[in-house]
Amino acid sequence: MNILIEGIDILTADPTSEYKRNADIGIINGIISFITPSGRIPPEFKADKKLSGLKKLAMPGLVNAHTHCGMTAMRNSADDLSLQKWLFERIFPIEEKMTDEDVYWSTLLGAAEMIRSGTTAFADMYLHMDHAAEAVCETGLRANLSRSPIDFHNDGGLKAVDAFDKCRDYFRNWNGNAEDKIKVYVEVHSTYLMDIESLKKAADLAAELRTGIHIHLLETASERKDSLEKYGKSPVEICKDTGIFNVPVIGAHLVHVSGDDINILGAAGVNAIHNPTSNLKLGSGISPVPALLDAGINVALGTDGVASNNNLNMFEEMHLAALIHKGVAQNPELVTARQAFRMATVNGAKALGFGNDTGMIKVGMKADIILLDIDKPHLHPMNDPHSAVVYSAQGADVHTVIVNGAILMENRELKTIDEEKVKFKVNSISERLFDVL
Amino acid sequence: MNILIEGIDILTADPTSEYKRNADIGIINGIISFITPSGRIPPEFKADKKLSGLKKLAMPGLVNAHTHCGMTAMRNSADDLSLQKWLFERIFPIEEKMTDEDVYWSTLLGAAEMIRSGTTAFADMYLHMDHAAEAVCETGLRANLSRSPIDFHNDGGLKAVDAFDKCRDYFRNWNGNAEDKIKVYVEVHSTYLMDIESLKKAADLAAELRTGIHIHLLETASERKDSLEKYGKSPVEICKDTGIFNVPVIGAHLVHVSGDDINILGAAGVNAIHNPTSNLKLGSGISPVPALLDAGINVALGTDGVASNNNLNMFEEMHLAALIHKGVAQNPELVTARQAFRMATVNGAKALGFGNDTGMIKVGMKADIILLDIDKPHLHPMNDPHSAVVYSAQGADVHTVIVNGAILMENRELKTIDEEKVKFKVNSISERLFDVL
Repeated sequence: MNILIEGIDILTADPTSEYKRNADIGIINGIISFITPSGRIPPEFKADKKLSGLKKLAMPGLVNAHTHCGMTAMRNSADDLSLQKWLFERIFPIEEKMTDEDVYWSTLLGAAEMIRSGTTAFADMYLHMDHAAEAVCETGLRANLSRSPIDFHNDGGLKAVDAFDKCRDYFRNWNGNAEDKIKVYVEVHSTYLMDIESLKKAADLAAELRTGIHIHLLETASERKDSLEKYGKSPVEICKDTGIFNVPVIGAHLVHVSGDDINILGAAGVNAIHNPTSNLKLGSGISPVPALLDAGINVALGTDGVASNNNLNMFEEMHLAALIHKGVAQNPELVTARQAFRMATVNGAKALGFGNDTGMIKVGMKADIILLDIDKPHLHPMNDPHSAVVYSAQGADVHTVIVNGAILMENRELKTIDEEKVKFKVNSISERLFDVL
Repeated sequence: MNILIEGIDILTADPTSEYKRNADIGIINGIISFITPSGRIPPEFKADKKLSGLKKLAMPGLVNAHTHCGMTAMRNSADDLSLQKWLFERIFPIEEKMTDEDVYWSTLLGAAEMIRSGTTAFADMYLHMDHAAEAVCETGLRANLSRSPIDFHNDGGLKAVDAFDKCRDYFRNWNGNAEDKIKVYVEVHSTYLMDIESLKKAADLAAELRTGIHIHLLETASERKDSLEKYGKSPVEICKDTGIFNVPVIGAHLVHVSGDDINILGAAGVNAIHNPTSNLKLGSGISPVPALLDAGINVALGTDGVASNNNLNMFEEMHLAALIHKGVAQNPELVTARQAFRMATVNGAKALGFGNDTGMIKVGMKADIILLDIDKPHLHPMNDPHSAVVYSAQGADVHTVIVNGAILMENRELKTIDEEKVKFKVNSISERLFDVL
């Protein structure tokens, strides 16, 4: 399908031309084929669908670089608790009860929420991932999905069961699926849930499959402390030593990093995923993002799961990423609106391994584009559009969502998800899970 | 007008009965006259207007306890700058050029934004306040407005001009106006912009008028340091000594407070207004809210002006207030959803001097009520409604806004403000102000 977006202002995330006024965008077979001053489209171009840019702003779709979409049924069920209570009394017992179907429907609900708030691509790791992948394919979203090569079962203590073959199968079944919108990485939950041998095997598996690894890294102070006690090394050093950092890495959290860790992360080209809401809400702390940026590390943003957020709204993460580091360091020049905007778009695409395909509005890239309705009081006067998007806008300002040239939402109406059915199903799942508890 | 809200779930903010399911709310002449199980309304009650509670949640309107609505024309115009550059190169030069009309229209735009995001009452201090009051009366919002007894003019340095008579007149003209929805306090900008003599005179004036004071207090580290150097006392001690704390006080910011300050604030019954976004964005720091709460201080929330926010969305402040203190102290049990909800509602009403009238959904109180549309993916499953409102909801979920029994917005349509005209006017004002610069 050929789409023409007419007469629109664009925040491109392309550093060579950040802001274009009153342009036309042409999309042919999912690719951004031209961006011209409005009215000067190539004469041979025929649009199957035209979208008006009047009172709209186009920008690259947001990239949620670390989440657990299958947890959506647990929303607002475990708040204001200590990490131990949260994990052992709420999350783990519920997860034991979760079925394939629960993850399928929860992923659809999460996808509905993400599309409504402008996310076009996300990185997910969770349980029952075949059923998450099935759901993702239906939604039309772009995703980096990962499955663990170890299954964990919680009967009394946490029991680890080998699943390397399942992990390999998962890659073969889903990587490159859905017109190449699905990319599969290997999940490494963390250096504290996996032993050294398994970490090495997981790194080898990722290298064998020529893919990457999605890992939780230095989320809490105790993770760092326990690793130093057990191994005399930080989790970052463990990753380096076990070969985890020999492949592309999505490293979630990175709150409790030392200067040495930052040097290792920078040298290894690890993508750091900042999850400000989740890190604050669980009391984990605040990632030293300005130092990560100074070291040249690619920093992207994530929501984490709804059990620690409690939504999947990337506008809130962008907003927080631009705010908290200024406050903590008492320096208002840290993490500018432009930097936060890039973290949520182009940096995110790069972190997920989609950097050559998407993340900018630029000719030749795949069309992952959102249109914001800027005719709202809180977006007047607009003045600086990066500031408007990062500091003033909210998720509900997203009007239209395009992924890979397909329209997933138009005028706030979802095109690929039966929202009423999904809400009903997940409400029922939530009732069942919490009755069981 | 008599209004009936039928079959609705209610978060009341009333500690004796926090959550009611499937109730009817009856409003007679602006007062909440009954709350009954649905279908059991008093037989003599005749509704002029019925509102459906289907898939809605009722809660008290949000109270924005510190803002400068007249600054709205400056939105997204001065971001990511040091405080000195922000104030002296951006804000002050623009303010010199602002007219009565600019403040009138900017206040209307701010009001439109506040109504759309569920605010029903706010505390404002700024320039050209007669024209702010005029605008507020048109909107139907409840407001605590204050005018300074000193006018400041910026020609080279800041020049202070006596305006005590103007301040007295402002009180006489506006206090109790608009069916008692307007309350007038005396503005004391700060202890650093006013000398000891003026502070004493302002305190006397407030006492004479039997009203309160709205003041900026300990926003920055340098405010504290300069006061200690100049007077050997913190700004809080200055306030105590000059009589400022002998009347009701709206104390905005309170970031850099000592333990001694907290004792004084607690003993004086000062209302502390936490402005998390603004304090973070300007790099001022983070108010020790858990310590203020522990001392029994009434803590409410504010957005501050759009020049340091950049919106007037109290859902974001509630969200941040519940998140940042957990992260800073690495303690997820600090500032619960319920506490943040109370800060944004009942505590705010109390801080503004409207505590006997409003802040809860309770029989006998004035009807300042908002209805949220909870039929959104990000509010499913609902599970804990306080968590849903504080952690999951956004401003755009507000469906209907009632103040003093009058409907200011229904199904997201504003009833008292010509939004198209207001946006156009403020855009023109912004263009003029920034061309001048």
